Amino acid sequence: MNSRLKFLFLNLFLFFTFLGKAQEKITIGDKQFLFSKVLNEKRELWIHLPKTYHDTGISPAKYPVVYLLDAEINFEYYAAMTDFLSKPPYAEIPECIVIGIKNTERTRDLTPTKSQKKSPVNPDVVLFADSGGSENFARFIQEELKPFINKTYRTQDYSILAGHSFGGLFAVNVLLTHPEYFNAYVANDPSLWWDNGVLISKTKDYLEKNKKFPSHNFLYISQADNEEQNKNWNSDMTQAIEEFKRIVENNGTLNYQHRFFENEVHGTVSFPGNYDALKFIFKGFRTDIKKLSGHPKLLEEEYKRFSEKAGADFSPSETYLNVILKFMKSNGFRASEQYFNALKEKLYPKK
Amino acid sequence: MNSRLKFLFLNLFLFFTFLGKAQEKITIGDKQFLFSKVLNEKRELWIHLPKTYHDTGISPAKYPVVYLLDAEINFEYYAAMTDFLSKPPYAEIPECIVIGIKNTERTRDLTPTKSQKKSPVNPDVVLFADSGGSENFARFIQEELKPFINKTYRTQDYSILAGHSFGGLFAVNVLLTHPEYFNAYVANDPSLWWDNGVLISKTKDYLEKNKKFPSHNFLYISQADNEEQNKNWNSDMTQAIEEFKRIVENNGTLNYQHRFFENEVHGTVSFPGNYDALKFIFKGFRTDIKKLSGHPKLLEEEYKRFSEKAGADFSPSETYLNVILKFMKSNGFRASEQYFNALKEKLYPKK
Repeated sequence: MNSRLKFLFLNLFLFFTFLGKAQEKITIGDKQFLFSKVLNEKRELWIHLPKTYHDTGISPAKYPVVYLLDAEINFEYYAAMTDFLSKPPYAEIPECIVIGIKNTERTRDLTPTKSQKKSPVNPDVVLFADSGGSENFARFIQEELKPFINKTYRTQDYSILAGHSFGGLFAVNVLLTHPEYFNAYVANDPSLWWDNGVLISKTKDYLEKNKKFPSHNFLYISQADNEEQNKNWNSDMTQAIEEFKRIVENNGTLNYQHRFFENEVHGTVSFPGNYDALKFIFKGFRTDIKKLSGHPKLLEEEYKRFSEKAGADFSPSETYLNVILKFMKSNGFRASEQYFNALKEKLYPKK
Repeated sequence: MNSRLKFLFLNLFLFFTFLGKAQEKITIGDKQFLFSKVLNEKRELWIHLPKTYHDTGISPAKYPVVYLLDAEINFEYYAAMTDFLSKPPYAEIPECIVIGIKNTERTRDLTPTKSQKKSPVNPDVVLFADSGGSENFARFIQEELKPFINKTYRTQDYSILAGHSFGGLFAVNVLLTHPEYFNAYVANDPSLWWDNGVLISKTKDYLEKNKKFPSHNFLYISQADNEEQNKNWNSDMTQAIEEFKRIVENNGTLNYQHRFFENEVHGTVSFPGNYDALKFIFKGFRTDIKKLSGHPKLLEEEYKRFSEKAGADFSPSETYLNVILKFMKSNGFRASEQYFNALKEKLYPKK
């Protein structure tokens, strides 16, 4: 064998070895890149598709989408969390596509105004020199990223924006400026102190002009431990969040939940906050499979009730119907089994 | 080019294409297989190594190990959760290796006694025909799996066993029969009702004989929503967990935390339970980087205190020391920077 052929065989060997190893990886997502004209730069996306996305045993399904900021910190647990929470028979939420957006210039993208601040640890250090680009970043998401995702994946017309700290500030700002961009907003320990509370003023202005919030928007806010915050650089963070809370709760028109996490600090609150937020946003989505054995119509009634609350159409997934059918069959509930077979045939007709 | 050469080139092309695509995956672990002589079967393991495991910029580090049952349900969020919780500067826990154990015969492996039970949904159905193999499964973990993991990976002599439902029953049983196998035990909504509460009797027997629990063991128990449980198949689950709680808390010698989760059902409680358990087990591990600027010795004092509590040696990781050094440098704390440079040199001497 000549040396060139030997080289090729070596590569072939490596190819199959690599294939073998690659199959043994447990993956949670894919990286994709999208060039943004608005931002004039390439953006890295971390994309998670639900477990059933490529399931050929069911009709191709559509999924709600979560746009998640600070992908590098939050993507992996968030993606795994949506899988866990959407697993039947205890599905608390629908299966979701998660789009994690990796940062390039975080401060630029997530802050609504230009502002500089001296470091509270060392006043010689000036922070946030590059700030105030959030309107551009919101345009990137709405005009470039969402169309790309909707074209590339099977998405349902329902989306959530989730952010932490500056990302929470960004989420609240998008709600105030473009509430129609997302159905639900999640702001974990949001930096509402930004620029002397500019979003507090904006919230007041919004309510003065509009009187109330759009009826189908949801906003969840988590807040980290107060006592810790007092030791923190930004003790004004607590004050700003609490002032925002007061304004929103006094108005009373927003589907709003605020939760203070006693044992969490600014850096950890996103984890329980994001979990709690999904349970808040999808409250009423879960149906009790055991109740359905005696009352099969309950399924559609509960989905209808949930859809009205969410302001978007949600139907039982084919995967969930299969789980229900298996349950009815293995426990001998014949009448219910027939009912759900007919419902499945109606919702997901075989071609 | 002859056709054989063409074939080889095609394969080469595929090889590089595949390589390119493989790099774009976001992976959370690897699958491995281990043949168990004790169980006489091949077992599938899902293995997560911490982010710094292959970091060549630091000295090779050792990590605590979590042995996680029901890998297929819990592995992905659990692995991502340990990464999130161990990220400096807010690290609540050390970085961990997570070993997820996939099921083969779940009931056989996780239950301590042979027991059959009629389905509460349909009494014609008999459940759990194959049960009572947990002593074998514990031997597999202790005598085969742990030696394999300790030989294959850089492990610290500190391990946690975490399980849910039958897995929680298993964890409590290992604590009672072989407390030295693990440092800490996590039982999420454990099936302590099993076989007419056989583990309740075993707990009483254990305490009659030994008077107290080993001083360095930790046990965390989560419990799902009571009201939901009343609607559930196993309303005796609640009673058994509460009786166990009473016995353990009356004895008062175990590092024990019990938490009832108001808004969780049996199927979801593991997620917040596992998070809360890690925060309980590693309470006192986190140090406040801002406090260290004025009081650098605090770091060693706090690690010493934590190690005593945990009954195992924990030192500040080189990764954390690098984060501290960066913080001191960028904020101009020269004296502290010097102190931590010396500490790093002491703990991780350059060869």
